[in-house]
Amino acid sequence: MASPTLAATSPPPNVGLPPGLPPALAAIRETIARVPLENISGLARGALGDPSIIPLWFGESDLRPPPFLAQALTQAIDEGHVFYTEQNGIAPLREALAAYLVGLGAREVGADRITVTAGGMNALVLAMMLVAGAGDNVIVIDPVWPNLGGIARLLGAQVRSVSMDLTAEGWRLDPAKAAAAMDGRTRAIFFASPGNPTGAVLPMATQAALLELCRARGAWLIADEVYHRVIFDAARSPTICDIAAPEDRLMVAHSFSKSWAMTGCRLGWLVHPPSLAPTLAMMVQYTTSGVTTFLQHAGAAVVERGEPSVDVVRAYCKQGMEIVCGALEGFARARLGPRPTAGMYAFFEVEGMTDSRAACLDILRRTGVGMAPGFFFGPGNERFLRICVARSPASLTEAMSRLATVLG
Amino acid sequence: MASPTLAATSPPPNVGLPPGLPPALAAIRETIARVPLENISGLARGALGDPSIIPLWFGESDLRPPPFLAQALTQAIDEGHVFYTEQNGIAPLREALAAYLVGLGAREVGADRITVTAGGMNALVLAMMLVAGAGDNVIVIDPVWPNLGGIARLLGAQVRSVSMDLTAEGWRLDPAKAAAAMDGRTRAIFFASPGNPTGAVLPMATQAALLELCRARGAWLIADEVYHRVIFDAARSPTICDIAAPEDRLMVAHSFSKSWAMTGCRLGWLVHPPSLAPTLAMMVQYTTSGVTTFLQHAGAAVVERGEPSVDVVRAYCKQGMEIVCGALEGFARARLGPRPTAGMYAFFEVEGMTDSRAACLDILRRTGVGMAPGFFFGPGNERFLRICVARSPASLTEAMSRLATVLG
Repeated sequence: MASPTLAATSPPPNVGLPPGLPPALAAIRETIARVPLENISGLARGALGDPSIIPLWFGESDLRPPPFLAQALTQAIDEGHVFYTEQNGIAPLREALAAYLVGLGAREVGADRITVTAGGMNALVLAMMLVAGAGDNVIVIDPVWPNLGGIARLLGAQVRSVSMDLTAEGWRLDPAKAAAAMDGRTRAIFFASPGNPTGAVLPMATQAALLELCRARGAWLIADEVYHRVIFDAARSPTICDIAAPEDRLMVAHSFSKSWAMTGCRLGWLVHPPSLAPTLAMMVQYTTSGVTTFLQHAGAAVVERGEPSVDVVRAYCKQGMEIVCGALEGFARARLGPRPTAGMYAFFEVEGMTDSRAACLDILRRTGVGMAPGFFFGPGNERFLRICVARSPASLTEAMSRLATVLG
Repeated sequence: MASPTLAATSPPPNVGLPPGLPPALAAIRETIARVPLENISGLARGALGDPSIIPLWFGESDLRPPPFLAQALTQAIDEGHVFYTEQNGIAPLREALAAYLVGLGAREVGADRITVTAGGMNALVLAMMLVAGAGDNVIVIDPVWPNLGGIARLLGAQVRSVSMDLTAEGWRLDPAKAAAAMDGRTRAIFFASPGNPTGAVLPMATQAALLELCRARGAWLIADEVYHRVIFDAARSPTICDIAAPEDRLMVAHSFSKSWAMTGCRLGWLVHPPSLAPTLAMMVQYTTSGVTTFLQHAGAAVVERGEPSVDVVRAYCKQGMEIVCGALEGFARARLGPRPTAGMYAFFEVEGMTDSRAACLDILRRTGVGMAPGFFFGPGNERFLRICVARSPASLTEAMSRLATVLG
């Protein structure tokens, strides 16, 4: 066997990266190296597990998954659902999800438009990979959870922020602002409804205007509807699926995490044009090779028998929203706007605050209440903080009592 | 609210895509659209569930996961492991995996070098995203399972095939061939050892030569070691981890799928330089947001208590290899080379065969035995077929008896 020729080629220069990095870190792709690492988890590190901290920073309730989850997993394993399976997801789950969406009043969505994913996040990254890469840009409607922009940056696409406005009726989007931000390299508009952190439910007219805009510009519309059941005055939030054609450039991400309190399960799905199913199967093959088989079977059971859990989540968030908003409305330094009618968060302004990260850390130190700083949710939000309301009434009441000492 | 300006911009032209596609499919990124959709699953479609077919096409045994899996999942759920968790994976699992690797004789690998992933495939796609994108190329040592090249194509990188040679001692790699295939845009060398489909175990000297080559050229070495325990004359295959430094540009993908017969679980891990842990946490956050929490806890139990299952898998594959190779060696039209000492496959030449896909379909029709055609595993393999030997002795004996009618 010949020895390899060890030509005197230097390693590639670490263009654009700071000096002094460990050698391996200095050798990763610049696109990846440039994605900011800071996130809410980082802020919370060190405080996790401390019983004196009331953790209201994450987008997660303290509710448990449906009580039959473990039994459904065991049954699926016992029945031998332990092998590789279809990349788009098992037929019983895709059919259950299609029936579920239709049962919620959706325009016909067939199982051929559903691909099961390893969570709502995974649905969104597959959608983003399909449409945007290096040299492209995407419009992200904010305030929005930081992961939407994070995905785009991870894939090398530029994020163009288009902000909703806080009006007397709540957060509202002017679609003309989205239109003005688009150019020839804009591949998609991303929005979340109900929103995180705002709880804003985009009216159907606004969603329709975005769809028309995308149709006219040849762009994709990608909706994050993971909170579609966490709404207090309807069975689910309005969805653009109801008026779009199957072959419209539209994808919608869903998750088991919020509706059924299943964050730790990592199970979601993407609604997509039927023509994309084979391509998505290929993408699933080369990214995760499919979702845990017995978890998919348990997921079908949750879709079919888990509605009581949705009711609990919804009531819990509604109650939490009342506790938190009621307190915030009495605080001298806080300004909330109209109470959210959906979602898991109160997103409020703090008078005189100019550095939301520093304020969060200061309030954490002084009160032991963990919140998420506004700057994570898009530019121009340094005056805002986010509280997760999907926690027990006792802990929310205690948290608001502590916050009264600094915001009251 | 103003109406959006609907400028008369045309959708982007579908450069390079065939005409007549459904509108949505025609509007995805060209990089994605160009990735071939054909795979072994597609070949098998229509035959799945047909009891007259003996399915030896996939890389999957018919063994079940460790018998305590369902109980371990239930316990983890009962203990409340149902929430979001660390993006690099839970500490108990990372620590168990580090102890496991060290217990198998590895040079010290700390938990800070392990990120838990949604399967071995997911480990590989994260590794590839870290190092190669559009405009880059990667060296792939083949014959190799098609997914390695599939990942690269999905991410827009070019695949450069470097082939092992079938010698009297089995499949051997000349590292000089890899050196000759590299240029200034080569970001990584990918290899699998033990190999799929060949079962080839790369000698430590060959792996070391590849590491030296990568050091000299500033490239990454990425090893797929998912079959490291499926070896018949050792506890595990030689690994380059044993001689590399922690900050070498080296990543190694592992999986629960093969060692513990857990294909349907989608659980794996990546061994990486410690400096990459925060970056990998970010990438996990934006692609899957982490691996199913209770599955990670069950995984820790499997690592600690699952060694009997590894023994079963190893004995089963050894026995299957003897049945299949014994038969192949008696077939007039088949040529195997030295019997593999590892892996789950026999990869053999068929005299006079020039179109492996057509031959597979023809043999399937005539005998009801499903095999994988050689062309999937890299250029120059049209004379080869792959049989999975990780099946019951009875089904393998019956399959070889049927194949005797066409290859004997």
